[in-house]
Amino acid sequence: MKARGAVMTARLMLGKDTAAAVKADLDSEIEELKARGIMPRLDIIKVGDKPEDKAYENGARKRFEKLGISLEVTELPESVTEEEFEKTLAQLNEDPLIHGILVFRPLPDGLNEERIARLIAPEKDVDCFSPVNIAKVLTGESGERGFAPCTAEAAIEIGERNGIDFDGKDVTIIGRSMVVGRPLAMMLLQKNATVTTCHTHTRDLAGSCGSADVIIAAAGHAGLVTADMIKDGACVIDIGINVGPDGKLTGDVDFDAVSEKAGMITPVPGGVGGVTTSILARHVVLAAERLAE
Amino acid sequence: MKARGAVMTARLMLGKDTAAAVKADLDSEIEELKARGIMPRLDIIKVGDKPEDKAYENGARKRFEKLGISLEVTELPESVTEEEFEKTLAQLNEDPLIHGILVFRPLPDGLNEERIARLIAPEKDVDCFSPVNIAKVLTGESGERGFAPCTAEAAIEIGERNGIDFDGKDVTIIGRSMVVGRPLAMMLLQKNATVTTCHTHTRDLAGSCGSADVIIAAAGHAGLVTADMIKDGACVIDIGINVGPDGKLTGDVDFDAVSEKAGMITPVPGGVGGVTTSILARHVVLAAERLAE
Repeated sequence: MKARGAVMTARLMLGKDTAAAVKADLDSEIEELKARGIMPRLDIIKVGDKPEDKAYENGARKRFEKLGISLEVTELPESVTEEEFEKTLAQLNEDPLIHGILVFRPLPDGLNEERIARLIAPEKDVDCFSPVNIAKVLTGESGERGFAPCTAEAAIEIGERNGIDFDGKDVTIIGRSMVVGRPLAMMLLQKNATVTTCHTHTRDLAGSCGSADVIIAAAGHAGLVTADMIKDGACVIDIGINVGPDGKLTGDVDFDAVSEKAGMITPVPGGVGGVTTSILARHVVLAAERLAE
Repeated sequence: MKARGAVMTARLMLGKDTAAAVKADLDSEIEELKARGIMPRLDIIKVGDKPEDKAYENGARKRFEKLGISLEVTELPESVTEEEFEKTLAQLNEDPLIHGILVFRPLPDGLNEERIARLIAPEKDVDCFSPVNIAKVLTGESGERGFAPCTAEAAIEIGERNGIDFDGKDVTIIGRSMVVGRPLAMMLLQKNATVTTCHTHTRDLAGSCGSADVIIAAAGHAGLVTADMIKDGACVIDIGINVGPDGKLTGDVDFDAVSEKAGMITPVPGGVGGVTTSILARHVVLAAERLAE
């Protein structure tokens, strides 16, 4: 047992390093596209004026500017009708200068999200809104021909960029949300990991974590993963985002204690969250390349 | 350790018992539909003349006759064009007297399976061919508003009809196919099970099975699950179908030995396979009910 105040032994997996590595790859691809006269472009559809949408938009804009990808935002009022929304979406679907479309969700009650999801052009659907792309996550084809949800892909990316080969690894995911836990399970199977998915009904969370080579926390529950639950040297990827009573951001992992036992760990903030818009950018570039074929 | 020739201790979960239980539920629902002038009907589209298609068709026909559900088969030649196929499918999609459509797969090379999957009306797609229904399996909505793959649902059904409550159980699935292993993982998460999915790259299959309350084998590998791999009293559901050199059908489980240690077990043949067309029938009835709403 380690004494209190022991030094951190885990190697820190920083989002900015992975983002830089993704950028280095994308730079040459974007250059090639531009040499062919193609300017990669993402259009966001935003309904109403939510602060979290604005924060995401700002983060994406900063990232895209550095990469040289265009970003346009169509703002629609909360009162927008289904018909008006669908007309806007159809215009973006058809515009050959637009490669990626991102619809900020959830949509207001007046709009039929399921119907709209079926209308977005799958080949421009860079954050896995269309059932065509969701289905490809289940069947394991999203990497080759679809688009996986950006946050789930960011978690895998930060692991792989830090040298983790998921093939044959025992990976425990905590959380079964539609946008992270569930797709992650399917995506990691595609990486040949043995995948266990835990959640609120799991009886022995510590047991499932204790045998895992990699733990991915996506439960949205601060301090859920404690040091006694993980094996020495495990890799811990934290996707949780929790706001404490003091307004401080934390993940799902008891970072200070776990980092003394884990082999590798992502901080929150500064970990997976910093990679999400890089993956979004990669999807836009991929969409532009596929559409140009 | 048990002596050779020890008696079977596991309770046998027979497909015919589950099929009978499903039938009992469906009888009254079909009666109600007929009282409203609705005759539930499934149409199969069959391209070419494969013996396995014929076997499935015969099994479904036998089941449907007993239930009083109509079954029609449209046979198309191997040489059918994409245009002709799509025209046939559109007619079935639009016909209000048809509630379920089943396309036998794989389709011949000349047909674009991905394109056709997007054309089948999701509300008539009773065996989860459409990406709309596949996406609902991933997001956990297939039970309420979609259709899950029949075989995967049959495995859950035979367990539940034999008293298994998956909530909180540790379930290990062996196999990650698109039609069984992967959807099963998502469907069991929806049942609140803690789900581990193993496959050919899994390093410690025995370990993953040894801690499981329920093992579902869907690897297509005869004799893969042996008695030493399971814990005493575990529930073992075998979806494997393997044809031995002697032409004999076996599952993935070493039945004789495992049945001396398991608490419950499905035989092959006579287990899950006998439930699949019952689930198909239930989906047709469900489609007829939903379309009548």
